Amino acid sequence: MTAEQFRDRLLAEELLADGAVPGIYHRSFALEHIIQHLSAYISAAGEGTAMRRLHLGPVQARATLEGSGYVTSFPNLVGVVTSFSGTEADVPGFLDAVEAGGSWLDHTAPTDLALCSAGCHPLYPMLASSVVPTDGELFEVETWVFRHEPSVDPARMQTFRQHEFVCVGSLDQAVAHRDRWLERGRALLAALALELDVVPANDPFFGRPGRLLARSQLAKELKFELTAPISSSNPGAVASANYHEDHFGVAYAITTPDGAPAHTACIGFGLERIALSLLYTHGTSVSAWPTETLAALSIDPATLAEGSR
Amino acid sequence: MTAEQFRDRLLAEELLADGAVPGIYHRSFALEHIIQHLSAYISAAGEGTAMRRLHLGPVQARATLEGSGYVTSFPNLVGVVTSFSGTEADVPGFLDAVEAGGSWLDHTAPTDLALCSAGCHPLYPMLASSVVPTDGELFEVETWVFRHEPSVDPARMQTFRQHEFVCVGSLDQAVAHRDRWLERGRALLAALALELDVVPANDPFFGRPGRLLARSQLAKELKFELTAPISSSNPGAVASANYHEDHFGVAYAITTPDGAPAHTACIGFGLERIALSLLYTHGTSVSAWPTETLAALSIDPATLAEGSR
Repeated sequence: MTAEQFRDRLLAEELLADGAVPGIYHRSFALEHIIQHLSAYISAAGEGTAMRRLHLGPVQARATLEGSGYVTSFPNLVGVVTSFSGTEADVPGFLDAVEAGGSWLDHTAPTDLALCSAGCHPLYPMLASSVVPTDGELFEVETWVFRHEPSVDPARMQTFRQHEFVCVGSLDQAVAHRDRWLERGRALLAALALELDVVPANDPFFGRPGRLLARSQLAKELKFELTAPISSSNPGAVASANYHEDHFGVAYAITTPDGAPAHTACIGFGLERIALSLLYTHGTSVSAWPTETLAALSIDPATLAEGSR
Repeated sequence: MTAEQFRDRLLAEELLADGAVPGIYHRSFALEHIIQHLSAYISAAGEGTAMRRLHLGPVQARATLEGSGYVTSFPNLVGVVTSFSGTEADVPGFLDAVEAGGSWLDHTAPTDLALCSAGCHPLYPMLASSVVPTDGELFEVETWVFRHEPSVDPARMQTFRQHEFVCVGSLDQAVAHRDRWLERGRALLAALALELDVVPANDPFFGRPGRLLARSQLAKELKFELTAPISSSNPGAVASANYHEDHFGVAYAITTPDGAPAHTACIGFGLERIALSLLYTHGTSVSAWPTETLAALSIDPATLAEGSR
């Protein structure tokens, strides 16, 4: 089954509905139920550890695209929010432009908002110019993330959710966090009977300067992905564990008690991708999933409508 | 307590975190827990009725802003997604522009995406040029909605969730749906011990032509709001029940079996606003909420951390 065939099956069974633009989908309540239970399952793995726990909305300050360095590394993926830039007095001219077709976009201008680029990005500005505690600062976040990359592959949606655990602290704390959560994440997803692999990886930095960054990231072993079949037998990342060195610490003047720039690390679980991987691996009929998977996720198939009605 | 003081209290108690732009907030897991339980509580009121049930993402086709007529009525509220418009070859020039500060926005162009304007808007294109069944077509949807209206009042967030019940059918079916759900919604929210009122209302159409539309909407009694104190003693809308006449039926060539344009109606519950209204009315300590409110929402305060940690 190709990714496109798998997508067509999800659409035919009404687990997804077509959002009229490649990579934009509506989700059935059944699929959303799976995602909510996945979120709770992953969250439980961090229970008992003191951390700030936040759900972020889909929109962040545009300044975060710039401050995080995202816009220069991944310009092709960003989403900036523009809106009507006029006043009431400009409305008649605006309406004429719309009547004339399409050119209403000429009357829009960038706002100070952007779509969220990654689960951890909005956290660093919250710590800007501060000193983190000796034990480091931990966060758990869930976020709607945007990537402008239209595709027919349902594994590559333009909007999806990340559930992340983030550490801001010393070099040792950050690396230990990344390694601990990589192993914990592997165990969590393996317990759902997914065909998992752990592979060194690089981010899709854009353009020629990007290829150098990607090579350096691989050589330093900063990023590891947990991969599994998602929408075809070809494995893709369902989670990634990342050590960012002092990139965000320097960018936002976040320091450790000894005055050095803070180092950061995160693991991000892709909730839609994990849900798709479960549907691809175990089938689109949830009642036929392995008992261990249903038990781990506390999903009772008897109460779960299979389609969207 | 003013809306600004209430916001500061929610920030101090870490139920909200400041998203660095007015009207953008992160939400504690405790607040998200309340919102999830509210969503389930409202959803249960529609149980047993056959309808298509969908969670929409925060992003919709830009064409939906145009097709729904939203862009001409509320140009000031829209959010269009722009992204980098160049190729790999344009990256060096782009990076120079960013280095020079700010002008990187000149290298972006509108995509075919926009932030979701209202819970029901993405549904109508799904029915375009179709004939709805004799009994009409019903939907339940939950959506992240965007309104570009920066404010210090937490009742006026720029992104928030709507939970809607939508009817597409004959004039009689649409009006009956609106009236049935207005009464059902009133009873649902009254059972949470909120100080509710039902008031005829109009949408905030923009500009001088907009004022005529608003007057006509009021005169025809198309829109009713359920109001309650949200962030101050001044009541605001926590839900609204709307009859759209044949506006969307005509726009998308949706017809009833007799060949007439379909009429549509919806009720939209504002999940963040209802949650804030509960916190404003019953206090920010959930364990002190009325027993009936906690029981209705199946919230056990013992398992609910009060802040974000």
